[in-house]
Amino acid sequence: MTMLEPIARFDHQRPSRTGIAEAILCEPKSAEAISAILAEMDLSVRQILLTRLSQEKAAALSIQGLFDYDPLSRTAIAGASRNWPPPRPSPQIEIVTGGTADLAVAHEARRTLLYHGVESGLLNDLGVAGLWRLTEQLDRLKSARIIIACAGMEAALPTVLSGLVPGLIIATPVSCGYGVGANGQAALNSLLASCGPGIAVTNIDNGFGAACIALRALNLLQT
Amino acid sequence: MTMLEPIARFDHQRPSRTGIAEAILCEPKSAEAISAILAEMDLSVRQILLTRLSQEKAAALSIQGLFDYDPLSRTAIAGASRNWPPPRPSPQIEIVTGGTADLAVAHEARRTLLYHGVESGLLNDLGVAGLWRLTEQLDRLKSARIIIACAGMEAALPTVLSGLVPGLIIATPVSCGYGVGANGQAALNSLLASCGPGIAVTNIDNGFGAACIALRALNLLQT
Amino acid sequence: MTMLEPIARFDHQRPSRTGIAEAILCEPKSAEAISAILAEMDLSVRQILLTRLSQEKAAALSIQGLFDYDPLSRTAIAGASRNWPPPRPSPQIEIVTGGTADLAVAHEARRTLLYHGVESGLLNDLGVAGLWRLTEQLDRLKSARIIIACAGMEAALPTVLSGLVPGLIIATPVSCGYGVGANGQAALNSLLASCGPGIAVTNIDNGFGAACIALRALNLLQT
Amino acid sequence: MTMLEPIARFDHQRPSRTGIAEAILCEPKSAEAISAILAEMDLSVRQILLTRLSQEKAAALSIQGLFDYDPLSRTAIAGASRNWPPPRPSPQIEIVTGGTADLAVAHEARRTLLYHGVESGLLNDLGVAGLWRLTEQLDRLKSARIIIACAGMEAALPTVLSGLVPGLIIATPVSCGYGVGANGQAALNSLLASCGPGIAVTNIDNGFGAACIALRALNLLQT
Amino acid sequence: MTMLEPIARFDHQRPSRTGIAEAILCEPKSAEAISAILAEMDLSVRQILLTRLSQEKAAALSIQGLFDYDPLSRTAIAGASRNWPPPRPSPQIEIVTGGTADLAVAHEARRTLLYHGVESGLLNDLGVAGLWRLTEQLDRLKSARIIIACAGMEAALPTVLSGLVPGLIIATPVSCGYGVGANGQAALNSLLASCGPGIAVTNIDNGFGAACIALRALNLLQT
Amino acid sequence: MTMLEPIARFDHQRPSRTGIAEAILCEPKSAEAISAILAEMDLSVRQILLTRLSQEKAAALSIQGLFDYDPLSRTAIAGASRNWPPPRPSPQIEIVTGGTADLAVAHEARRTLLYHGVESGLLNDLGVAGLWRLTEQLDRLKSARIIIACAGMEAALPTVLSGLVPGLIIATPVSCGYGVGANGQAALNSLLASCGPGIAVTNIDNGFGAACIALRALNLLQT
Amino acid sequence: MTMLEPIARFDHQRPSRTGIAEAILCEPKSAEAISAILAEMDLSVRQILLTRLSQEKAAALSIQGLFDYDPLSRTAIAGASRNWPPPRPSPQIEIVTGGTADLAVAHEARRTLLYHGVESGLLNDLGVAGLWRLTEQLDRLKSARIIIACAGMEAALPTVLSGLVPGLIIATPVSCGYGVGANGQAALNSLLASCGPGIAVTNIDNGFGAACIALRALNLLQT
Amino acid sequence: MTMLEPIARFDHQRPSRTGIAEAILCEPKSAEAISAILAEMDLSVRQILLTRLSQEKAAALSIQGLFDYDPLSRTAIAGASRNWPPPRPSPQIEIVTGGTADLAVAHEARRTLLYHGVESGLLNDLGVAGLWRLTEQLDRLKSARIIIACAGMEAALPTVLSGLVPGLIIATPVSCGYGVGANGQAALNSLLASCGPGIAVTNIDNGFGAACIALRALNLLQT
Repeated sequence: MTMLEPIARFDHQRPSRTGIAEAILCEPKSAEAISAILAEMDLSVRQILLTRLSQEKAAALSIQGLFDYDPLSRTAIAGASRNWPPPRPSPQIEIVTGGTADLAVAHEARRTLLYHGVESGLLNDLGVAGLWRLTEQLDRLKSARIIIACAGMEAALPTVLSGLVPGLIIATPVSCGYGVGANGQAALNSLLASCGPGIAVTNIDNGFGAACIALRALNLLQT
Repeated sequence: MTMLEPIARFDHQRPSRTGIAEAILCEPKSAEAISAILAEMDLSVRQILLTRLSQEKAAALSIQGLFDYDPLSRTAIAGASRNWPPPRPSPQIEIVTGGTADLAVAHEARRTLLYHGVESGLLNDLGVAGLWRLTEQLDRLKSARIIIACAGMEAALPTVLSGLVPGLIIATPVSCGYGVGANGQAALNSLLASCGPGIAVTNIDNGFGAACIALRALNLLQT
Repeated sequence: MTMLEPIARFDHQRPSRTGIAEAILCEPKSAEAISAILAEMDLSVRQILLTRLSQEKAAALSIQGLFDYDPLSRTAIAGASRNWPPPRPSPQIEIVTGGTADLAVAHEARRTLLYHGVESGLLNDLGVAGLWRLTEQLDRLKSARIIIACAGMEAALPTVLSGLVPGLIIATPVSCGYGVGANGQAALNSLLASCGPGIAVTNIDNGFGAACIALRALNLLQT
Repeated sequence: MTMLEPIARFDHQRPSRTGIAEAILCEPKSAEAISAILAEMDLSVRQILLTRLSQEKAAALSIQGLFDYDPLSRTAIAGASRNWPPPRPSPQIEIVTGGTADLAVAHEARRTLLYHGVESGLLNDLGVAGLWRLTEQLDRLKSARIIIACAGMEAALPTVLSGLVPGLIIATPVSCGYGVGANGQAALNSLLASCGPGIAVTNIDNGFGAACIALRALNLLQT
Repeated sequence: MTMLEPIARFDHQRPSRTGIAEAILCEPKSAEAISAILAEMDLSVRQILLTRLSQEKAAALSIQGLFDYDPLSRTAIAGASRNWPPPRPSPQIEIVTGGTADLAVAHEARRTLLYHGVESGLLNDLGVAGLWRLTEQLDRLKSARIIIACAGMEAALPTVLSGLVPGLIIATPVSCGYGVGANGQAALNSLLASCGPGIAVTNIDNGFGAACIALRALNLLQT
Repeated sequence: MTMLEPIARFDHQRPSRTGIAEAILCEPKSAEAISAILAEMDLSVRQILLTRLSQEKAAALSIQGLFDYDPLSRTAIAGASRNWPPPRPSPQIEIVTGGTADLAVAHEARRTLLYHGVESGLLNDLGVAGLWRLTEQLDRLKSARIIIACAGMEAALPTVLSGLVPGLIIATPVSCGYGVGANGQAALNSLLASCGPGIAVTNIDNGFGAACIALRALNLLQT
Repeated sequence: MTMLEPIARFDHQRPSRTGIAEAILCEPKSAEAISAILAEMDLSVRQILLTRLSQEKAAALSIQGLFDYDPLSRTAIAGASRNWPPPRPSPQIEIVTGGTADLAVAHEARRTLLYHGVESGLLNDLGVAGLWRLTEQLDRLKSARIIIACAGMEAALPTVLSGLVPGLIIATPVSCGYGVGANGQAALNSLLASCGPGIAVTNIDNGFGAACIALRALNLLQT
Repeated sequence: MTMLEPIARFDHQRPSRTGIAEAILCEPKSAEAISAILAEMDLSVRQILLTRLSQEKAAALSIQGLFDYDPLSRTAIAGASRNWPPPRPSPQIEIVTGGTADLAVAHEARRTLLYHGVESGLLNDLGVAGLWRLTEQLDRLKSARIIIACAGMEAALPTVLSGLVPGLIIATPVSCGYGVGANGQAALNSLLASCGPGIAVTNIDNGFGAACIALRALNLLQT
């Protein structure tokens, strides 16, 4: 039983179809499989984003060329940039967290945006148990066009935000709770069931996906 | 097979042991069973609270004596008061709702308190998607010693409250949502997983239970 | 125990803060409660959207003035329009369904957009079990700036779409399945776990919420 | 992408608003993040409680100044006390467990109370499978004003207690079971569904939260 | 497409193999199907037990011969007894309930035993929120050889019993709760996770099954 | 807002692509919607299968032409056959049930096969609690090439079958249980987790799907 | 904060009340806690059973006196026997497994019985996917008075048994599956929903509990 | 307590009854138990498949004779082939994956087929987020008689396939997701609820089971 199949069928035209580059979700893949995928790409002319890559697995990769690893967000950018990313419109984007434990997910979103050439601001620890944290930043939040809100536990922050600001709110539940909040399930359901109008929800811990929604929204601005 | 057993073993000493009177949970009982239970009590010298009693079932009961039914809270008080309730300390108690759909549960709590001789205020529709609703009432909420907060959907209201006021916060999730919020499960888990400090949670829709917690807290004030 | 509280605290400034008008979620409220809420508003100068309003409950309402009820979407618009809605930017918006059973949710989204002055197209029954249905409409879908996709069962349609088009994809799971698909839970989880990049998910059957996300995205276009 | 954001927005006014001090939930945070948060506070004039801090993580912290770590409760108190805590009323408070496996959660509650200047008693292993254990201590339990009951498995203890004593009963389910009792879910649902009147429930293993509810109840006694 | 298959393959030898007679579970069958099954049996020489038979469906059956229907337990016995049941040993068996809402399930167990020729006692409403109810009956419970305990809500009664008596305890959770206790799931998990030693659990509301376990235990006594 | 969209995009080429005709799942559609879909087809030259069509809804349809409704399986065949179905290979196919309550699902499978021109046998009530029922039919089952097994409750029948016969076993869990077996979830999981080798599982109650799997398997026999 | 409480309140009278000795569930307790509990007992005159004790934790205990550890069942018996256990009636008891992976749970049951002075037989790997394994042992199983059946995956074995034998069947689901069978949940629900008459179910992996049910059943035989 | 029972009752006649050989599921068994089972077989004349065997456990086995271990699929074939497997019909079989993370499960299926003498093709990474991957291989997929599709995340691939090809589609959900997709539950439910006609589903990660279904289907071709 030989295996002549490619280790992956890379979707190099995805950016031209959707404005979003394919990325490698590393968590369910072995270091060997990731290395093999990267070896099939020509990283001297291409660049690729890797997500959910643990520090141990990153160290075990065998890679040729540039490799920029960020342990907090568990993301890496491999290969050399070549006319990538294309210039994009840049309205104000803010990434906010409910608490310090949400920072890793927030940074995954931020790095994904940056990989696509989009800058974003960060506001950390705005959890509504101390409402002044949010109101203190309200002017900045009101002028944001897109807000990516990462929140665990009961994830009340996006609900409160949704009644205060006009921007697109993308909410990512974070798996930082325990008990019924373990695995982010309470945060997810709280966001989906929210009485706040117009909250776009992603899978738990999916900072990458939140950034991709933001990129699609930015596509609206292109003429 | 004859049935000589009593239809219920009524716990008449519960008030003296706990300060809380036993009540009849009517939902899982037939009108015949409830009528039989009431017939075993001497309602000319006793008073009893009935909860979760639908309008149809209330109409089907056969009862001797006084019967005060409230359709919104689905509660009834049967029988004549005789030196009941005992005098109680009366700090300020507020019952708040996140929205109009929570009113039935709020009224169950209110009627239960009143049956025990305790007055309470009501603040309706304070949901945090319009934060001004809460802040407008903040002075009153800060001076309350006990707050019973009934909230469905994502139930963010008690979390926001918990960071703003010093009173005892008893939160009852309400089953008024749909999708993942159906049956109140999202509201319940949101309350349990809340980052807000010190929220006492009850079963879904359990306004009666919320009032009982408040009654136990009032027992602290007795010398 | 008198009830001097308002039946609702209406959030008339929400449009100016967020660009989205408050609506009345009718499902968990009695016809009496809805009528009371409407009576507190001056419908001769205001307009209000009602959602999840069954035909039976709509018939039981007592309302003064204009009342436009749509049984498929279970929405109603009460009151006279007065300089509402404000003029909006109008990029191409398409609402697509996986099958005929998703039409009610699609129409809730469509009516919500229209209430806010936004037109949208409709493409019905594009389910991927017959892939030609989707590819036949691909040019139209590629030029859409926002796509609201309503899909039940396994909800594969938004995943396939996400690889083909650049627009913002808002996906609403629909509770039209049975067995493990009952209540829309399989559709919801399929959308959240999708390998397709950048799908904004709402609660099950929440066509209103999908439209609100679209309205926030349109806010990006305002200068 | 630089990060100029604070690692946390500490809520130093929380005690004056609510009577409860903010604490650091350490479980979802790295040792680096916790050290950074502590470094931002001036521990020579402040004191802070850390919860759910494993022995390994505690050893990995870099801290200046006093640090009192308790491995059983996984709590630590960092920094020097300065006029903290304020004097409080001190009615009798008892912390009870169903079994030895609940002791860690019980001690988290106890340490949290002590950090706020409140003493409490401890009654260990009162599980109702040996009812004499409870009845032997009944006089002491009857005179308690607040009882924090930590119980895993089927968590029947608070239900039995609730019929016997007048004090405020705060019940914390403990994740010490296995099978359907794993993760404390059976204990939690048993407490929420209890027929015992007036049980205030917290999230699973949330001894800190139980203590915070007790602190709010003590606020009732302040004039 | 003709259907020559029998409507059921009746297991007439089951009593001789197991000591338990087959019964007809009526809930998932139409009145037509039940009538057809009964028509295939010769009810002049046989007797059959029907369970979970609603009053409406019972009225819709077309049956020849004797038919003894009990609406509380929703059971019926059809046909004439012919040397059935065989004589059995008769130790003391008690059926206990936590509350009046458990009576229907208790009676299903009782009727099933009686159909097999076994008498049982009944003790109603022994819920542990009023512990005196249980202790008052303790002598009788201690001398019982088999106890079938039917309990809903948090189902703490069998746990308390298990520490007090030596008899075989068969516990049937009852679906009389609401919120997290709805459908009997909290009661079931509480019984399975119980710290009480040696509780035999059945499916929710399965009074028939509880009686069958008791019948198998009685088989131990046969020589 | 006019609706010019077709009420459905019918997939008339599906049989030529897959050997399976599209059908109309009626449960989530209104009688009006189903009537509209049928009106768009030319039933004088086409035939269509309708599934999960309740007797009430069937009576409310407005249809031109032939309409063959079967209440047990809740299926209907509308329109005139025109050279349909194509001739098929016909190995022995048996549809078996665990009990009488599984007959409706079994008949849905049978009618679906027949609509595609495939005959099948039926063996009813072979549940393994009376093992002789199965062994009595073992020769017939051993010679079957395809067995569709419909089973509810704990669904042990397909597991036992899988060790005894060489045919393709397609197992459909049936929602005829109660308690933990309600909605067919226990049956489904039992089938998926089965230690029996090679059981093809469908969604709960999906007799139509089971037949479609059988049709695909029959495609293997075509040259 | 000193801790003067006992580390455990041992229930030495449990055997005389119930015929079952208390045991120490070691899984949720640290080696230190277990050692402390044992130190409080006088093991020179007492004997105690320890369950769910991992090999690592067993090695870490500090114990005086006899200690008999069995790694397969993860049980230990500490201390010297003194007139314990009392003589018991000894009908035939068989412990059966569905497969080799169930042996650990089976041995926990066996060791618990032996600790109480009761011998039992063992029949391993009788899973019904090879039905001959069961029928080969049928005579022995028919003559058993009590059968403890440990089964994972879909746990069909006890259902098949229940139709063939008259003995008391105690079924313990085993957490040896994967996918939907992981954690033993499919096995548990299959047993609870079984159509087999009279199966007494325990919590997942609870071999100790199964033995305790058997001990209570043996109490029936005592005069 | 001696254990004279066999460590396993091997089902050597299973191939002749069903065409499928028994295999050893290694995950829930210790290396000692697996070694003992193998020692009871005469591997000089028999061959056996081992599944879900981790690399660590494989290294810890003590085996006599041939042993072919494949780490990707975690399968091993022990013993010497003797006239095994029997010659089989060989239509085209394709194993497809949605992504690289599904390869391990795909290889378990492939190795199981090969062990039974059946060759199969492999098509890797055909996920529908890049639809060209699937359409590029469509001719090959259309001519396949059996397709085993392994897919995680939202598992949309088999749904799309089912509308395009006539072959038997066996779908195995893969546990490679995270958040709501963790443990493969979203993929499983998506496959069961699929609107695609005729998808045969297995337990999560059950590549072995998928191959067994294929083997049963191949039995149709035998005369």
